Amino acid sequence: MSSSEGGSILRCTCLAFVFLSLCLVPRATAASAGTNRHIKEIFIGQCWYYTEYISQSLGENVQQNCTDLWEKFSRAWMYKDPCNVTMADYEPFVKAATVPGEVPTNKAVFWEAAYTLTHDYSGSRRRYVASADILTGYLGNHVFAWCGQEAEPGINFDSCPLEEDCPMFQGQYGGMWTAVSKAFAEVSTGVIQMILNGTTAGTNVAFNETSYFNLFELPNFPKAKVTRFQLMVFHDVGKTHKETCNNGSIPLLKKRLEELGFEYDCADDPSALRHILCLDDIESTECQFASKVLRPTSASNTIGTGFKTLVFGGILVLFYLIAIY
Amino acid sequence: MSSSEGGSILRCTCLAFVFLSLCLVPRATAASAGTNRHIKEIFIGQCWYYTEYISQSLGENVQQNCTDLWEKFSRAWMYKDPCNVTMADYEPFVKAATVPGEVPTNKAVFWEAAYTLTHDYSGSRRRYVASADILTGYLGNHVFAWCGQEAEPGINFDSCPLEEDCPMFQGQYGGMWTAVSKAFAEVSTGVIQMILNGTTAGTNVAFNETSYFNLFELPNFPKAKVTRFQLMVFHDVGKTHKETCNNGSIPLLKKRLEELGFEYDCADDPSALRHILCLDDIESTECQFASKVLRPTSASNTIGTGFKTLVFGGILVLFYLIAIY
Repeated sequence: MSSSEGGSILRCTCLAFVFLSLCLVPRATAASAGTNRHIKEIFIGQCWYYTEYISQSLGENVQQNCTDLWEKFSRAWMYKDPCNVTMADYEPFVKAATVPGEVPTNKAVFWEAAYTLTHDYSGSRRRYVASADILTGYLGNHVFAWCGQEAEPGINFDSCPLEEDCPMFQGQYGGMWTAVSKAFAEVSTGVIQMILNGTTAGTNVAFNETSYFNLFELPNFPKAKVTRFQLMVFHDVGKTHKETCNNGSIPLLKKRLEELGFEYDCADDPSALRHILCLDDIESTECQFASKVLRPTSASNTIGTGFKTLVFGGILVLFYLIAIY
Repeated sequence: MSSSEGGSILRCTCLAFVFLSLCLVPRATAASAGTNRHIKEIFIGQCWYYTEYISQSLGENVQQNCTDLWEKFSRAWMYKDPCNVTMADYEPFVKAATVPGEVPTNKAVFWEAAYTLTHDYSGSRRRYVASADILTGYLGNHVFAWCGQEAEPGINFDSCPLEEDCPMFQGQYGGMWTAVSKAFAEVSTGVIQMILNGTTAGTNVAFNETSYFNLFELPNFPKAKVTRFQLMVFHDVGKTHKETCNNGSIPLLKKRLEELGFEYDCADDPSALRHILCLDDIESTECQFASKVLRPTSASNTIGTGFKTLVFGGILVLFYLIAIY
């Protein structure tokens, strides 16, 4: 599932489209689509929805003004050539849309090449808070493709460049996700969880030095408020363990964390991630429950082994006795 | 998690609020709230969002008109005393909002007292389609509390009755969910999955004869197009198995299915459901993976048992030899 989501350079595209495009329809179709005709209504409706959702999750009233947020969001990219949009263009929107307290201590989860897995793990704020569980990230992930054009009406409804069609970390998506990534890291405190993909496809790696995580998140955590990093390396069920906590690109990440003065732990295939991956691979060996499978098996093995040992032991003692006799 | 969602009589409330209220904040707070001030914008924005989401999931363009759907939805309950709303009032909305083909064959999942678990299992249409994964159900679950009043402005923004405050299957929620349940069953074909809660709280039971499922779904499946029912009984991790496939209220459901001429299978704690429940109970015995835990344990047990057997076997043979000698 997750490794098919592409490397971390494609993260914006993943963030924006993976939930639908990569999971459900061939990617090219959706990624090259133009802006949704109803983007303004979708943005504002989703914004009012999610501010109420966060309010209930936090038990306090969130005061964002969604019409104002649409103005700031659309001003970042409307009437502009898509690739001419930068992080700075989105900063007024991201600043206004950041909800105080929306990332409780010890709840933040970061990721590379693991959008779907990470968000299943966070459970839409039920367990943790990942990038699409904060207001800015939620909105970016719920408006489908979007891009501007210099000519009227300032929005291109026919076709939008993909993230990789613009210079790295620029464009309508690159600008947005760099700003969101930076802001998310800035408010993340306590234990920071980081999900890494140990089974990336092709030449992709688990920790990419030109990733959003390395360039826009790692430098922006509030150092004094971060307890440690909990690295979690998952492997798609049944796939070769291309990288683990101790090999591949992950030791580079550990070194980087040390340089920055962060403590860390690293776990390969923690059970929580395995449970999620197993939902789509119920029958595989790695997905069997001990209580369902191995108790009977191990019991019969023990009996089998015990019986063999009994015979073998008897013969040994017999030979010993004959010998000493 | 799921057993705390209450019995199936409370299902409307669950459908409408569980995602937030029951998971995140004390239930009374949200359930007694009035209509969200931005309900119209939320409804229309979510509607355009979800029609596009379903379009991408189906690979074809869904043509619903969301402004028209809002008119039909709001007409069902605006300017009315909340408890005076019935299933018939919502039928024009449900009819207009039903998307052809939105429930592919073998994909439908039904449930009683298991909203969150079921929707984690369906994965928002990635794996299956549950009640909140069709347009009508999605909308009902994404507008928070709502209710009307006879006086202007026709909407009560201050306080709404809970589902159980109105006569059963009536009111702004009861009317909606009876109509949605009926329509969902009518388009469900192939293998029908049904998730049942074997660890309900108090006097609640897994299969409730006065449930939405029994009264509004079971009678409305297209018989000729249903292959069989796959009943799945889950038990909250670490809890007593109050009901299983073979006891409690579930045999009643089997009898009912037989009477209706449906074939069925029943499984207690299928692995997929267990994996989801284990996400919130990683350490419990029932949640351990065979590959992680029991192989080493069973190996050391085998060695221990083997050694004991060796000694015991040796002694036995020794006695035997002494005896025959």
